[in-house]
Amino acid sequence: MKEGGVHAVHVTIAYHETFREMVLAIEQWNRWFEQYPDLVFMGRSAADVNRAKQEKRTAIFFGFQNPSPIEDDIGLIEICHTLGIRFMQLTYNNQSLLATGCYEEEDSGVTRFGRQAIAEMNRVGLVVDMSHSAERSTLDAIDISSRPIAITHANPAWWHPALRNKSDDVLKALTGSGGMIGFSIYPHHLKESSNCSIESFCNMIAQAAERYGVDSLGIGSDLCQNQPDSVVTWMRNGRWSKQMDYGEGSASNAGFPDQPGWFRDSRDFNNIPGGLTAAGFAEAEVDAIMGGNWLRFYENSFGPLPV
Amino acid sequence: MKEGGVHAVHVTIAYHETFREMVLAIEQWNRWFEQYPDLVFMGRSAADVNRAKQEKRTAIFFGFQNPSPIEDDIGLIEICHTLGIRFMQLTYNNQSLLATGCYEEEDSGVTRFGRQAIAEMNRVGLVVDMSHSAERSTLDAIDISSRPIAITHANPAWWHPALRNKSDDVLKALTGSGGMIGFSIYPHHLKESSNCSIESFCNMIAQAAERYGVDSLGIGSDLCQNQPDSVVTWMRNGRWSKQMDYGEGSASNAGFPDQPGWFRDSRDFNNIPGGLTAAGFAEAEVDAIMGGNWLRFYENSFGPLPV
Repeated sequence: MKEGGVHAVHVTIAYHETFREMVLAIEQWNRWFEQYPDLVFMGRSAADVNRAKQEKRTAIFFGFQNPSPIEDDIGLIEICHTLGIRFMQLTYNNQSLLATGCYEEEDSGVTRFGRQAIAEMNRVGLVVDMSHSAERSTLDAIDISSRPIAITHANPAWWHPALRNKSDDVLKALTGSGGMIGFSIYPHHLKESSNCSIESFCNMIAQAAERYGVDSLGIGSDLCQNQPDSVVTWMRNGRWSKQMDYGEGSASNAGFPDQPGWFRDSRDFNNIPGGLTAAGFAEAEVDAIMGGNWLRFYENSFGPLPV
Repeated sequence: MKEGGVHAVHVTIAYHETFREMVLAIEQWNRWFEQYPDLVFMGRSAADVNRAKQEKRTAIFFGFQNPSPIEDDIGLIEICHTLGIRFMQLTYNNQSLLATGCYEEEDSGVTRFGRQAIAEMNRVGLVVDMSHSAERSTLDAIDISSRPIAITHANPAWWHPALRNKSDDVLKALTGSGGMIGFSIYPHHLKESSNCSIESFCNMIAQAAERYGVDSLGIGSDLCQNQPDSVVTWMRNGRWSKQMDYGEGSASNAGFPDQPGWFRDSRDFNNIPGGLTAAGFAEAEVDAIMGGNWLRFYENSFGPLPV
């Protein structure tokens, strides 16, 4: 990350974990913060990103891909924010207590508990993330949330019509309300998958800029480095499935797909500015997409709502 | 219960409890079984009902009103059955991970996890109960389940159109597939509430017998005796709501409503056979409705599916 100039990372703290299990994941990060203070520290605010940049370190921001850690308890939203959680997806592929995931056949939108949870997240400064949610639930969340929300990692369906990528309607509603989209470099979200070129990826961003403006665009790499396949099996199956669920993969392609050659690990963040420049972006726009937009969003999102 | 001739009771072990919290409720029952062996023991099979009758005791059968105790873990279904759980509702008013409750605005039916959970419940002999579920989810569950399901406590909406009562479509599908309906004597489910007469209640059962046949009909009293209002507040609000939710009640009628005069406590089970006879049922039909139908259902439902 240091070599890639990455001063802030939003890391996954939970896929299917209960509250107590999620706390164990934070404990693991705390050990790393203790062991490697020259490299990483826990990020809680936009100011921490600036500090990381100055000190040539990386601020680690915590996010949930699923609301499983708040269990059925609205009081845990504030507790999680206090523990440093800054993003929470309302669903991870399946139906949750809050909303519907993109793998369900039917999407009933945000639930009764979901409406109260969004209000509470808005109050304390925990960002609603709808990366793995279904269409109607996402539009509902944008509408219900009093603060801009995020789709931290996905691409437009008009570029690559994967189940996880987002419709033009969703992206218009998201960006029109001040929300952010982080473009994903996970091969299943890319046109031509692992063979996707940096030109294709950056031209897609240029088209998105034309449709939605530059201000709402960022990177949300979905990068998973040096993890065993058991991690992807946990993501997809949790404890809910007795059958093997391959998610975006398949029986013959069950593990992590190969990253494209221009984005193998965090060092390759260095390749993207050149790609964006070649796609026609000005320097200030490249800076905004590479981090400036997220930084502004962090500034406005992580504190409590003024009473 | 002894005075009321009640030899089997399906008790609520969980509304919103996690697995661990639910185990505490079983521990409480275990203490009572230890302290009052002349009155109660844990029921696991239909044979235990016959034994209770012979020994003039009451067999206590465990049920969940919500799937919260299985959390997100399909493996907990077999564990719960081993612990003695014999009924599990897929939802309690709100959306669950498995299906939609009757208080949600939208009903998306049984979820991906829900389909797998029903198959697992069928396998081990844990009855699917849809008493608090929404219409489409209930029809889905009847369709997906390979074994007859139950609506353990509700009444027909054509008699009293409460949100919790069931449509003719649901009752036809339920009884047509061998499922059971237990008629509720909770005032919010009764025509004229606490003022409902035993004649009105038993005439409703007679009409249900004409529509659906006698074999699928039983009593599911929903009786809650000598419990503080904090119990009804927990039922309705769990940990999910920051606002007070009054459920079937209202701000001015927040606690338990008064029982009708002919059904104040378990002793008043003795009043129902006379009411059924007056409504035109023959003696064998009265016996079937008072317990014979449930006993046959227990015989067929609590064991594992033959492999």
